[in-house]
Amino acid sequence: MPRTTLKDVGARVGVSAKTVSNVVNGTGWVTDEVADRVRAAMAELGYRPNLAARQLRSGRSGMIALALPQLAQPYFAELASQLVRAAHERGITVLIQQTDSDVEAERRILSGIGAPAVDGLIMSPLTLGPADLYARTDPTPLLLLGEQAGASPYPHVAVDNTAAGQAATEHLLGLGRRRVAALGAMESEPRRAADLRLTGYRRGLEAAGLELDERLVLPVVDYQRADGAAAARQLLESDVRPDAIFAFSDLLALGAMHELLVAGVRVPEDIAVIGFDDIEESRYSTPSLSSVSPDTSSLARTAVELLLADPPVPGNHTVDFTIVERASTRRAET
Amino acid sequence: MPRTTLKDVGARVGVSAKTVSNVVNGTGWVTDEVADRVRAAMAELGYRPNLAARQLRSGRSGMIALALPQLAQPYFAELASQLVRAAHERGITVLIQQTDSDVEAERRILSGIGAPAVDGLIMSPLTLGPADLYARTDPTPLLLLGEQAGASPYPHVAVDNTAAGQAATEHLLGLGRRRVAALGAMESEPRRAADLRLTGYRRGLEAAGLELDERLVLPVVDYQRADGAAAARQLLESDVRPDAIFAFSDLLALGAMHELLVAGVRVPEDIAVIGFDDIEESRYSTPSLSSVSPDTSSLARTAVELLLADPPVPGNHTVDFTIVERASTRRAET
Repeated sequence: MPRTTLKDVGARVGVSAKTVSNVVNGTGWVTDEVADRVRAAMAELGYRPNLAARQLRSGRSGMIALALPQLAQPYFAELASQLVRAAHERGITVLIQQTDSDVEAERRILSGIGAPAVDGLIMSPLTLGPADLYARTDPTPLLLLGEQAGASPYPHVAVDNTAAGQAATEHLLGLGRRRVAALGAMESEPRRAADLRLTGYRRGLEAAGLELDERLVLPVVDYQRADGAAAARQLLESDVRPDAIFAFSDLLALGAMHELLVAGVRVPEDIAVIGFDDIEESRYSTPSLSSVSPDTSSLARTAVELLLADPPVPGNHTVDFTIVERASTRRAET
Repeated sequence: MPRTTLKDVGARVGVSAKTVSNVVNGTGWVTDEVADRVRAAMAELGYRPNLAARQLRSGRSGMIALALPQLAQPYFAELASQLVRAAHERGITVLIQQTDSDVEAERRILSGIGAPAVDGLIMSPLTLGPADLYARTDPTPLLLLGEQAGASPYPHVAVDNTAAGQAATEHLLGLGRRRVAALGAMESEPRRAADLRLTGYRRGLEAAGLELDERLVLPVVDYQRADGAAAARQLLESDVRPDAIFAFSDLLALGAMHELLVAGVRVPEDIAVIGFDDIEESRYSTPSLSSVSPDTSSLARTAVELLLADPPVPGNHTVDFTIVERASTRRAET
């Protein structure tokens, strides 16, 4: 039996093969009524798109893969949503994979082994380094998010972490705070983004003529709420007394703020707090949390564009950020 | 040139084809050192797994698809993480797609058209109804999460929303509260889960011999923080004064709580608040949020098991829930 074609389906409904193709691919503009009839005809005629054939013809599968460390981290979940939308605007489906920050999982995805055929891979690696990236042999276009991986032959998109770290620190100094703590230093890998933010913090202090007090640099092992809460508990038990905290993620900030508030420390009166990522949760915490807000929507659009650019445009592409001031750093009335 | 096989790669490294297969599929237990040598040999010999052939041989691709409405909703992101882990325990890769609650996207995914070949599809539909599900012709095994879709020929896994709604209401009544508001009623589709929770709320009131005050049933259009905040603002402007709120999602509860606190209403002293979903954020809000906690880890394991069960086990499978009491409903000391 010959395979049912787009044309066969179109003939049954009385529309063009192109219209059927639009329904199949979710492209163009088709009324609900026509789309319903096309789908009914496809079911009736047993139409199955010949993906392998389509791919051979066009060289495209219409799908890209996105590999992220942890969807339960709101920043990554919100970023994934933006990437899905940016790809959808170009008629592209995104298949998301969670690596759980596992080096084996990241290497497998990087190798393309055991993965569906896609037109490109967007990856935010946590454990991969230049050695892995330079050794890659898979020909699928690759775009990296963030700066964890360091140097590589692939394009990557990130916010300027150093400039953002300095801006956050200067925001706190601008409120008249003089003992600004940096919450989120990393003593082991993956530490690259943390180191860049810490450099920004140092520059902010230097520009204000302030000495760095190493006791105000608070290390963590991860960027979750629990890590921020643990650091705040340690702080409360010590005799170190900051008057502001720059946390390297909103989750760290929210975890720390919760512990401070429960202990009776007032935010922002006693300690002003600013986070990093501007996740939606920060708009609804009490007090609402100030944050470094990367232009995630521009990051998503840039990532999809660069991934599909032919020829590829290697090197670092930075996106803008803003400092969003909310109640956690609002200047007290005097 | 003959295609490089697992055996060729194994011979080069001096390990079995099975060990190479374990590296390719991320199964079994292989030392980092051996895995590195296997990968180097695969790159050197130009090994590419023949997915289509493997699939024809085994009838399995080793991948399943997961379609969720919105990854930026923490409940779905946390659920996706759990499903990825449950599948990984069985050596299965999960490809996640976000439908954005769009009826066209949900129908395309349901049809399998334009999608990668997978061994099964787990879907949490928001817009699909029995008509869509009974008309489905794609033979890929399907498992539904939640109860939005209603009756269908496919297995579905969900928490018992009615029992959970009643338990949450009784928790508030057990604190001595008598004017319990229900925040999250839906006046249009998708409203099925909301209706079940509302039924539970009514039953809780009835069991306590309380009359339902319709003014305490607060409708929303969606389950986001912004919807909870808007409902709380309306409440504050009205002369309706509940002494407790049962919100049908944690996001609704967190949005409402923020508005109440900013307006000077004390939680739990003036209004006790309980949510639904037990997302991690609720442990770190101030006050921390009590919540109905579905056993998400059991839900994820059950979903993967049922999806791959042969023959399929249709019908509804419920998972347990608990009421987690936190500061937002803690009994005031008297």
